[in-house]
Amino acid sequence: QKTYHIAVIAGDGIGKEIVPQAQAVLEKVTRGKADIRYEDFDLGAERYLRDGAVLPDEDLDRLKQQDAILLGAIGDPRIKAGILERGLLLKMRFELDQYVNLRPSKLYKGVVSPLANPGDIDFVVVREGTEGLYAGAGGSIRRGTPQEVATEVSINTAYGAERVIRYAFQLAMKRRRRLTLVHKKNVLTNAGDMWQRLVDQVGQEYPDVEREYLHIDASTIFLVTEPSRFDVIVTDNLFGDILTDEAGAVVGGVGYSASGCINASGTYPSMFEPIHGSAPDIAGKGIANPTAAILSAGMLLDHLGFEDEAASIERAVEDDIERSGSTQRSTEQIGRDILARL
Amino acid sequence: QKTYHIAVIAGDGIGKEIVPQAQAVLEKVTRGKADIRYEDFDLGAERYLRDGAVLPDEDLDRLKQQDAILLGAIGDPRIKAGILERGLLLKMRFELDQYVNLRPSKLYKGVVSPLANPGDIDFVVVREGTEGLYAGAGGSIRRGTPQEVATEVSINTAYGAERVIRYAFQLAMKRRRRLTLVHKKNVLTNAGDMWQRLVDQVGQEYPDVEREYLHIDASTIFLVTEPSRFDVIVTDNLFGDILTDEAGAVVGGVGYSASGCINASGTYPSMFEPIHGSAPDIAGKGIANPTAAILSAGMLLDHLGFEDEAASIERAVEDDIERSGSTQRSTEQIGRDILARL
Ligand SMILES: CC(C)[C@H](C(=O)O)[C@@H](O)C(=O)O
Ligand SMILES: CC(C)[C@H](C(=O)O)[C@@H](O)C(=O)O
Repeated sequence: QKTYHIAVIAGDGIGKEIVPQAQAVLEKVTRGKADIRYEDFDLGAERYLRDGAVLPDEDLDRLKQQDAILLGAIGDPRIKAGILERGLLLKMRFELDQYVNLRPSKLYKGVVSPLANPGDIDFVVVREGTEGLYAGAGGSIRRGTPQEVATEVSINTAYGAERVIRYAFQLAMKRRRRLTLVHKKNVLTNAGDMWQRLVDQVGQEYPDVEREYLHIDASTIFLVTEPSRFDVIVTDNLFGDILTDEAGAVVGGVGYSASGCINASGTYPSMFEPIHGSAPDIAGKGIANPTAAILSAGMLLDHLGFEDEAASIERAVEDDIERSGSTQRSTEQIGRDILARL
Repeated sequence: QKTYHIAVIAGDGIGKEIVPQAQAVLEKVTRGKADIRYEDFDLGAERYLRDGAVLPDEDLDRLKQQDAILLGAIGDPRIKAGILERGLLLKMRFELDQYVNLRPSKLYKGVVSPLANPGDIDFVVVREGTEGLYAGAGGSIRRGTPQEVATEVSINTAYGAERVIRYAFQLAMKRRRRLTLVHKKNVLTNAGDMWQRLVDQVGQEYPDVEREYLHIDASTIFLVTEPSRFDVIVTDNLFGDILTDEAGAVVGGVGYSASGCINASGTYPSMFEPIHGSAPDIAGKGIANPTAAILSAGMLLDHLGFEDEAASIERAVEDDIERSGSTQRSTEQIGRDILARL
């Protein structure tokens, strides 16, 4: 039995409630197959409010030693927007070079989509994770005066775009062989043109993958009118952020949407997290849906090479949802029901 | 009778088919009340393919002399993305300082929304129109090499944000007094923080308007799950572009979505256009829906001070849609049906 070191950052709000359910599932499916050692990291709002630390170098160094990271949710209304996001969540994605932000969207049987005729929805967004407007470049002058100017700089590199584009083509080959590039190349002509050229170029190596291009605005329409047209979407950091939340809504709620922040070259650990946030409005009530966290644990196992175990988690979740649909259940009940199906 | 000079840029694709219907409606409702003189501008794909001109200074100067501009659609697949968008459409918005991009979304009775339970949808997006990522700042180095770096710079000013925010609050006072700021202030901390401070500051003058803030990603969720919550949304250029296309889908298609690019200080003419594009796939078939163009003509009249006539257009459109729903009609038939109700 190989030993795996998993960092656990339960984080804030409902993060603390859903992560134990995901761990219980991890435990059960790997029993006798892997020796999983958890290390809890005290990161998030409480730590910051207590000692002002967001992501100390020491924690970052320890994170780098792990085989993977399981994250609950980060964010607290008491803390000014940006501090934990930029300082912790995005800092991890950037420092650990998690350049593939992988976000599957699937409408499970038994889940009620807000769409009247959703059709078969099953696509994956490959969101770039380490550049674009998320680079943190930009600044302000004359702040607080009527002459204030604030800039945000989107930094995009061929190196950064090409590696996620390649990942997306490889993924498309394993799926329905259809790749959609989403950008806004009619306005963001520098970055958009580069993305399009790289998709065309890498696409030469994957002649079996059908390619299309959509502007971000048009793609928000198709997500609502014809979501089944999508197989693999590749896009930049910000557009991926926007599309995957809309996609989460379309498949019945971000409560079912898992994600992986993947360092596909393996130089640092990858991180797995639900795409929903810390949901302070329902935190502490024991009613948060742990499904997205459990599916994230499945993606983590898949990443570590436990494909069968990952598939069994996905199947258990599918069965659970099909059977229980949208009946109100507590966090623990959902966790128990999924465990029982494994 | 006062004389009004209206520039008509029918443009490309279905633009040429829908604009005459909008003009017929304008004619009918202003008969005996205003003397409308049209000046056709030969701008768009054909002109560009013929003589390489996108928006010559001469045309721009003549546009500046008009009282308003009626635009069909711009865009042609034969032309590289960005040339007509940046060189013509956005150049007009910027040069004519059309800083309020006003985009109402309403679910008309008789229109089928793709949502299962759409509820009452009736909101307006006030999109900033002259800055942000649309400023055209940024560039590339080492283009076409593996070391390529492409940047896009979002330029945001207090001057630019404050004037649309003020416009949005004034609009909210005439409506349901609820204003939602949409941004991504947890990541775009420079611009997001400025927008939030300005909304808070201008909001002091409008204590009766309830304010809320939503991240762009979260707002794409609410547009699908609870669109009736919105009254007035104020946001930047790119987020407004994205949200209004999604909103168009939610209210049954961008075929019903009109917009105004408004220079609210009156220094230059405002421009009115459907939010849909030139739709090359259906162009020339006589089946494009002219409703958004007709509603845009209504917004144009409202802007020129003909509130009653504008309201009568909106009513005629509402009646027409309620009666005819989504029955297939030709462009001309829809135009005639709406005319008959005026
Ligand atoms: C919290 C925030 C920084 C983050 C993002 O914008 O990437 C979140 O919205 C997400 O999608 O994971
Ligand atoms: C064509 C394009 C430049 C334009 C925009 O991005 O503003 C369009 O999408 C719109 O919404 O009017």
